[in-house]
Amino acid sequence: MNFSSKLLENAVAEFSKLPGVGQKTALRLVLHLLNQNKQEVEQFSGAITKLRNEIQFCATCHNISDTAICEICSSPKRDAGVICVVEDTRDVMAIENTSQFNGLYHVLGGLISPMDGVGPTDLQVDSLVERLKDGEVKEVIFALSATMEGDTTIFYLNKKLKPFNITISTIARGIAFGGELEYVDEITLGRSIVTRVPYENSLTK
Amino acid sequence: MNFSSKLLENAVAEFSKLPGVGQKTALRLVLHLLNQNKQEVEQFSGAITKLRNEIQFCATCHNISDTAICEICSSPKRDAGVICVVEDTRDVMAIENTSQFNGLYHVLGGLISPMDGVGPTDLQVDSLVERLKDGEVKEVIFALSATMEGDTTIFYLNKKLKPFNITISTIARGIAFGGELEYVDEITLGRSIVTRVPYENSLTK
Repeated sequence: MNFSSKLLENAVAEFSKLPGVGQKTALRLVLHLLNQNKQEVEQFSGAITKLRNEIQFCATCHNISDTAICEICSSPKRDAGVICVVEDTRDVMAIENTSQFNGLYHVLGGLISPMDGVGPTDLQVDSLVERLKDGEVKEVIFALSATMEGDTTIFYLNKKLKPFNITISTIARGIAFGGELEYVDEITLGRSIVTRVPYENSLTK
Repeated sequence: MNFSSKLLENAVAEFSKLPGVGQKTALRLVLHLLNQNKQEVEQFSGAITKLRNEIQFCATCHNISDTAICEICSSPKRDAGVICVVEDTRDVMAIENTSQFNGLYHVLGGLISPMDGVGPTDLQVDSLVERLKDGEVKEVIFALSATMEGDTTIFYLNKKLKPFNITISTIARGIAFGGELEYVDEITLGRSIVTRVPYENSLTK
């Protein structure tokens, strides 16, 4: 593209680095910011710099936090006997939004993926094992994506956690609520028949 | 959404203000930036602040510029006898990308739109009239969107520029190159028959 300004070109180049943002979208966003007053633009760029410079990761669960120990880990209202293992912060938010879970989390920071060169040592595995040592934790729930990487990670962690004599579970897989049978893929549908549950248990409460 | 960090929430809120960016996209972009090193994030926010604080608008054509008079207006290679009137910077870029125009531009900064409360006084109309006074300009080309607002603006400007005894033209409307007849809307197709051109003129050079 033919920019009339080097400053504009730089800003567009920076925005284009963001995932899913092409050059045309970047230009639209930059021109939008250019129409805002200086204070608003300062606020925008300030929020990002501040976030990057001041953000911490909870020493216990490794979730994003403003403090050394995150709100969830330090809350006396949460059940410290259950740990839900997730891939990243977004998953914590998603589960928190359901209001169905009152335990603690453990953010792995990724999934085992040999193709991408991510092995167990790149993830927060040792600290998870460490958290189980005092015997307070009774159950670990794996809430990982239903992908090859997710399954590999569960397989690996399951072996690691076996010695602790705790309940190990994974979130239920099956047909989504509101899903129509004819559009469900065969693997999900097939497994949902094999892993059928008693009718009483299937009711939402 | 349930953010585990106030800093994160602020950054997501700022990104959500951008056009076409919802909260989920904003979160994805912010988490992406969080994964970059501090220097890269500084560079990102720096480029935007610098753009907003240092950008200028060309005193002649009102296009975005790094200097008081933009590159195009100050270039001796451009034909100062032709002015192409456009809505905004993006249109200048689009036309420059075609490499088919060698004249100067005039950026109106919008289109007349009574619905949005934009009248002629909100646009760079007076300075366009001013540019015609020394008699150097022989032709004004309107390259505005083929919308009600574009047509209204052309109608208004045409009356304003009549007294100057210059050629006033608009960019050609018709069927796009590669367009299939059956998918073209009736108005465009109908007008393209009425405003047909001699075959020799229609060939791309």
